[in-house]
Amino acid sequence: MKLKMVSENNFPTAAGLASSAAGFAALVRAIADLYQLPSSPTDLSRIARQGSGSACRSLFGGYAGWRMGETEAGSDSTAYEVAPASHWPDMRALILVASAEKKDVSSTAGMQQTVATSALFEHRAKEVVPKRMKAMEKAVHDRDFEAFAALTTKDSNNFHACCADTDPPIFYMNDTSRAAVRMCEAINSATGRTVCAYTFDAGPNAVVYYLSDDEVQVAGTFKAVLGGRLQGWEGKRGEAVPGDGKVPEGMEVASELLRKGVSRVILTGVGGGPKKTEEHLC
Amino acid sequence: MKLKMVSENNFPTAAGLASSAAGFAALVRAIADLYQLPSSPTDLSRIARQGSGSACRSLFGGYAGWRMGETEAGSDSTAYEVAPASHWPDMRALILVASAEKKDVSSTAGMQQTVATSALFEHRAKEVVPKRMKAMEKAVHDRDFEAFAALTTKDSNNFHACCADTDPPIFYMNDTSRAAVRMCEAINSATGRTVCAYTFDAGPNAVVYYLSDDEVQVAGTFKAVLGGRLQGWEGKRGEAVPGDGKVPEGMEVASELLRKGVSRVILTGVGGGPKKTEEHLC
Repeated sequence: MKLKMVSENNFPTAAGLASSAAGFAALVRAIADLYQLPSSPTDLSRIARQGSGSACRSLFGGYAGWRMGETEAGSDSTAYEVAPASHWPDMRALILVASAEKKDVSSTAGMQQTVATSALFEHRAKEVVPKRMKAMEKAVHDRDFEAFAALTTKDSNNFHACCADTDPPIFYMNDTSRAAVRMCEAINSATGRTVCAYTFDAGPNAVVYYLSDDEVQVAGTFKAVLGGRLQGWEGKRGEAVPGDGKVPEGMEVASELLRKGVSRVILTGVGGGPKKTEEHLC
Repeated sequence: MKLKMVSENNFPTAAGLASSAAGFAALVRAIADLYQLPSSPTDLSRIARQGSGSACRSLFGGYAGWRMGETEAGSDSTAYEVAPASHWPDMRALILVASAEKKDVSSTAGMQQTVATSALFEHRAKEVVPKRMKAMEKAVHDRDFEAFAALTTKDSNNFHACCADTDPPIFYMNDTSRAAVRMCEAINSATGRTVCAYTFDAGPNAVVYYLSDDEVQVAGTFKAVLGGRLQGWEGKRGEAVPGDGKVPEGMEVASELLRKGVSRVILTGVGGGPKKTEEHLC
């Protein structure tokens, strides 16, 4: 049987926002459903991973982990559920789209260069990540936002450090990204507790995590900085965010960089995995 | 005896261009000369290091190394000569001053934060740097520019990776710095061999190394990109650099970032250490 497949995203493609992960997860899930294969998300994650590494995680909703595995071919490199979305549903994410431009280097190719040439990556993989993964699973189980935030930001910085240590260096973050880092630090400092965490994937876009109770401090501050007319603040969710909040002091340069560099925001949160639909192309 | 001392730089201060190193090295050398202390540069480097770590190296001319030492207090952390300037005199440096703004964090305070919080720094200090130092001394002894260049750029990237892995992250390089990295890669690629190497200290300014025979390819390309009217191209040395060279293809974005971000260039080379003068304030 020949299959005709069309893949569409409602967010920027090849911009470091895991579009390949979402696409391959949806594709593998759709084919498994079509042929009524009795595969668990973990089994399917093994297949999806071959399209795009992080696709294995995207077969799950909620909070998912990805075990590295031990075999050379990666057959035991699969994803697993840490907790369903319902366990900690008030997690929110504000994505600051700093570039919708396609990347020079695909995330997969970049990661391979990093593994091959960085003098720090092996230490990261062997020593840094395993400890943090355990701590992160505990933070999710305990719904401990402060621990979640510290691990998220440290690990993002550690990953980008290894990218910068690649030969030639890979720079995913730009001056806009760094302004987002400074703004998150300033929001936490002004609030007197950790209300937000940032992370950057293979691109300059910031993903800012916060709990729904802190939406005013976090998303509200970014709306005040960026202005409410930017794409992404429309609709019920975006309009509910007040845009007249106070921008922390001393953030003039960072604010200006964010206004210049952020083209769009995406307000989202923890959700489900791929869904089966009855829509067909013909 | 009371001493009145005045310290001046002819290059930007506190901008990550080792102004503290130069100042403390000059100060320690001047005082030793004044009191006619029979101290070798290595002895003096132990004292200078307490003002600014890298000041210990600046007591030497030519190519200098800095051994970490093993004592907690750092009393055995001294500098040494790898080779005098006369050993490899045709080494040139073009400094692209990307910011003459004073830094938020001093290099010394930044380094202390990195040591305390980076999950990668210990691996850098124990595993990465010692091997590279040996290889670098060999490259200098052999006047092997290709090895020198590879070690210089990799170690710069490794250092900035550890800065980015600090909590909170320290970002010395900015979008202008990264454009300089890409331009150096493009110049090497267009020339078909390694003619230049970049390094960044605790600031966004690029230091581009090349041999005098390759001045047209390296400094000439940067002059063609930046325009010859920028501060630093005047004088005998700057005017000798042709500014009508070909900019490598595909470098439009990097060229634009460099034109926007570089405020001044400094053309220099390997030289001597602190010099005794008979000039006095009164």
